Amino acid sequence: MEVMCMVSCGRYTRPHFNLLLLIILQFGLHTVDGVWPLPQTFTSSAERYPLSPQALYFVYGSQSAAQQGCSVLDAAFKRYFSLIFPDYTSGNGVLRFSDGKPFIVEVSVDRDDCEGYPNEDSSERYNLSVCAGQASLNAQTVWGALRGLETFSQLVYEDDFGTYFVNKTEIDDFPRFQFRGILLDTSRHYLPVKAILKTLDAMAYSKFNVFHWHIVDDPSFPYQSSTYPDLSSKGAFHPMTHIYTQSDVRRVISHARLWGIRVLPEFDSPGHTLSWGKGQSDLLTPCYSGSTPSGTFGPVNPVLPSTYKFMGRLFKEVSSVFPDSYIHLGGDEVNFACWKSNPDVRAFMQKMGFGADFTKLEAFYMENIMNITLALNKTSIVWQDVFDYHEQRSSLSVVEVWRDGCYLCEVRRVTKAGLRVILASPWYLDKPGPTHNWARYYTVWPLAFKGSEEQKKLVIGGEVCMWGEYVDATNLTPRLWPRASAAAERLWSDEKQTSSVDKAFPRLQEFRCKLVRRGIQAEPLYVGHCKHEYQGL
Amino acid sequence: MEVMCMVSCGRYTRPHFNLLLLIILQFGLHTVDGVWPLPQTFTSSAERYPLSPQALYFVYGSQSAAQQGCSVLDAAFKRYFSLIFPDYTSGNGVLRFSDGKPFIVEVSVDRDDCEGYPNEDSSERYNLSVCAGQASLNAQTVWGALRGLETFSQLVYEDDFGTYFVNKTEIDDFPRFQFRGILLDTSRHYLPVKAILKTLDAMAYSKFNVFHWHIVDDPSFPYQSSTYPDLSSKGAFHPMTHIYTQSDVRRVISHARLWGIRVLPEFDSPGHTLSWGKGQSDLLTPCYSGSTPSGTFGPVNPVLPSTYKFMGRLFKEVSSVFPDSYIHLGGDEVNFACWKSNPDVRAFMQKMGFGADFTKLEAFYMENIMNITLALNKTSIVWQDVFDYHEQRSSLSVVEVWRDGCYLCEVRRVTKAGLRVILASPWYLDKPGPTHNWARYYTVWPLAFKGSEEQKKLVIGGEVCMWGEYVDATNLTPRLWPRASAAAERLWSDEKQTSSVDKAFPRLQEFRCKLVRRGIQAEPLYVGHCKHEYQGL
Repeated sequence: MEVMCMVSCGRYTRPHFNLLLLIILQFGLHTVDGVWPLPQTFTSSAERYPLSPQALYFVYGSQSAAQQGCSVLDAAFKRYFSLIFPDYTSGNGVLRFSDGKPFIVEVSVDRDDCEGYPNEDSSERYNLSVCAGQASLNAQTVWGALRGLETFSQLVYEDDFGTYFVNKTEIDDFPRFQFRGILLDTSRHYLPVKAILKTLDAMAYSKFNVFHWHIVDDPSFPYQSSTYPDLSSKGAFHPMTHIYTQSDVRRVISHARLWGIRVLPEFDSPGHTLSWGKGQSDLLTPCYSGSTPSGTFGPVNPVLPSTYKFMGRLFKEVSSVFPDSYIHLGGDEVNFACWKSNPDVRAFMQKMGFGADFTKLEAFYMENIMNITLALNKTSIVWQDVFDYHEQRSSLSVVEVWRDGCYLCEVRRVTKAGLRVILASPWYLDKPGPTHNWARYYTVWPLAFKGSEEQKKLVIGGEVCMWGEYVDATNLTPRLWPRASAAAERLWSDEKQTSSVDKAFPRLQEFRCKLVRRGIQAEPLYVGHCKHEYQGL
Repeated sequence: MEVMCMVSCGRYTRPHFNLLLLIILQFGLHTVDGVWPLPQTFTSSAERYPLSPQALYFVYGSQSAAQQGCSVLDAAFKRYFSLIFPDYTSGNGVLRFSDGKPFIVEVSVDRDDCEGYPNEDSSERYNLSVCAGQASLNAQTVWGALRGLETFSQLVYEDDFGTYFVNKTEIDDFPRFQFRGILLDTSRHYLPVKAILKTLDAMAYSKFNVFHWHIVDDPSFPYQSSTYPDLSSKGAFHPMTHIYTQSDVRRVISHARLWGIRVLPEFDSPGHTLSWGKGQSDLLTPCYSGSTPSGTFGPVNPVLPSTYKFMGRLFKEVSSVFPDSYIHLGGDEVNFACWKSNPDVRAFMQKMGFGADFTKLEAFYMENIMNITLALNKTSIVWQDVFDYHEQRSSLSVVEVWRDGCYLCEVRRVTKAGLRVILASPWYLDKPGPTHNWARYYTVWPLAFKGSEEQKKLVIGGEVCMWGEYVDATNLTPRLWPRASAAAERLWSDEKQTSSVDKAFPRLQEFRCKLVRRGIQAEPLYVGHCKHEYQGL
């Protein structure tokens, strides 16, 4: 029995009804299981077409604004060919040639944004129609086309005889949230560039679009600044082997761009800066024991003009190295004890009329830093601490909510103040729970707070955080995947269609096997097996 | 300043005082940190000798019972050469040639057990003396020599200029417990042979000596039996790709032997056998719903003679395939509901006079299985459940204690009954806690129960269990290492010398970096770095 075919191969045909359940019931799992995160609208039929590596072609539509030579799409065509036919490209397997007819994947975009960077406003919407001999992929931007190519690659499956197929399908898809990030922490442990690049690959498979690079922190300063080279030569774990050179950073940004991923750098201050002090004297506050310096250092010294001069030059460099319009300024967990102990800080407090309220001093500091980055045309993100302590909230732009507890209460407060929110609290994946708690990251409802429609629109997205205390390249991947993919579906897909853990489970299992097949060391959800187990030992 | 040198290069010189702390304080960490688990006695001096790959030789002592052609030691010499000089063998680095003088590692053993298998009685004691130009390693058996080679390899370190050194050292070492195992579960997820072999390598680095292969269970039966091939062709996840052929099993046993590791197979019954039923009809108990079979199956059917005939033939095969004198018969977690529902089982209970006590039926079953393996000259191990329910405890040999709670109470009871104990309860590593809970596996005192000296001697060792619900080749290694190494030191080293978590921490961190350097994806303990980070992505 065949479901009535609603598919046509025209541009922007958007069937708005959802045959998902019907399809699952009637045709087994392989057709719909195929795509994670779940597209917004999805129709599929049992009609299927064989694909062969000798006869699959990616081409640009004749009306497409981007044509051959488009760096982003040219690279994507090559990449997805290998992802679709893993055996062919690795030369490990013999593929059966089942059909000599060519299959064309025709990609058209409205704008030639091939050499640019994805940004906060980039449309990721795409429309994908798969018919006999052809798939049409249409999008406004190349970034949307990338998402569509990912979806197409996930639609392809291999039968037991080694033949690849794709079913007749119609998809119209777009992300629920604009900001879907993953934070990696390269200060508590150094992550080799290769580990970052591989994470970017896996991010794209789950349609994440922001790599939040928490690049420096207390334990080490691996960013090799051209303005202040001592920061890494003295503050990194090792001045040569445990640093990110300018070339490394460019490589990460360039790799991310080809996947449609923004790179958001974080230079967290005034706390979390111990390693900065090794290469920059007078930057950190000397702590006092009674009336004498104790020899230890606290947060950045907010009372010296030299501090702001230094920060101005550093952020000028960072702003030009990282093309994204956002920059993360940190501002979390400032311990006031050292400031309190320092007589110069206390004198400054008095002069400024801050009394004994050190949150005012922190606000003063952050205000200065935000002005620096504002002058550099960057939108600043800060951790929620800054919002909590700040009186002049109008100078804030985006607040990242990270604390446990009633995080939606905080989301409500921040949006009520008219500020944008990124939600991270429910997605701290660095602490390993039992693996099956993927459901904990799936059953998150970012908009389930009392607030106006305007407030809800201010929730621009969410972020999975992988802090580095217990994580480095040895365990990053299995700890991140596929649990982060659970968050990815929450951030991309329609909430109503993806509210059931039970329905998601087999789909996520299937997707996890796809990740493994692509060489991503994604850990299992529960008892079972993949057709192709992980072989990369 | 130099510590007075107590080292001599004679045979079996055993200095019984411990200079450990003194050495750490005076000469920094590299000399003593080097060895994990900590040797029983260890003296070292600041005097050090350069080693060069062009001039390091492993040779047999002239009086050694084993000589060239000894498979175990010939292979070990080759292996340890590569482990000592990783850059040289991989061709990645340029080693500085610092000293043309040869350095000889002379190995002597009392017995030529080169072609045998390690067993429960194998001595693992060794004596290692490192002097100028020479290291003398003496042991009773080749298995002891392997442990000594591991220790020697860990004593070698590289300075910042790429030169390798070993310090003047004298070690006399032997294991605290005879049985130091790791359980892998290849039924809940299939582990490729490569993953098992790599685990064996890592086990040897921590001086584990038993690989407990929980090879089959409810979800799948990957062991390809020559007597009953249907068991895997119907009971495995896949009959070709997810099985262990006879050749795979031989490869595992042979690889383990070369590391001095015993392979202990477990064929768990009568519970945990769902997958067996797919390839062997009438083996499992048909469950009833009222007076009719429900179509589901329970534990092995203990009332049919055919069951024991089958088990007899299967265990005959298993006994000849696996050379170890121990065999694990399982016997845990039998659910009586299905037996209760089955009229034939109930009739049998009545006939045997078991009343309504199904533990008697289980005991009857296990007794039969134990008689089968006894006739095959195997020592049987059972999970503690069998001890708990069994009345005729004299027919038991070794009991593995696995339940939570007061596990030492159980150890006390089992040893009081005169039976040997393997302790597993505190070392269930499959459930991921926060990683820093390595200390939880370190602070285990297996003999801290009230009992006679005789009772304590019956505690033959312990075992780290890595059950497979949430574990496969993607996350096995970082979940196992270095946490299992914490257990390894508890099982090998002197308890008094290794009771401090704080002292162990930097040593374990250093050892973990060694594992990473050897290509083992061992996860970090906490913030920090290794000179050579994991590169195997």
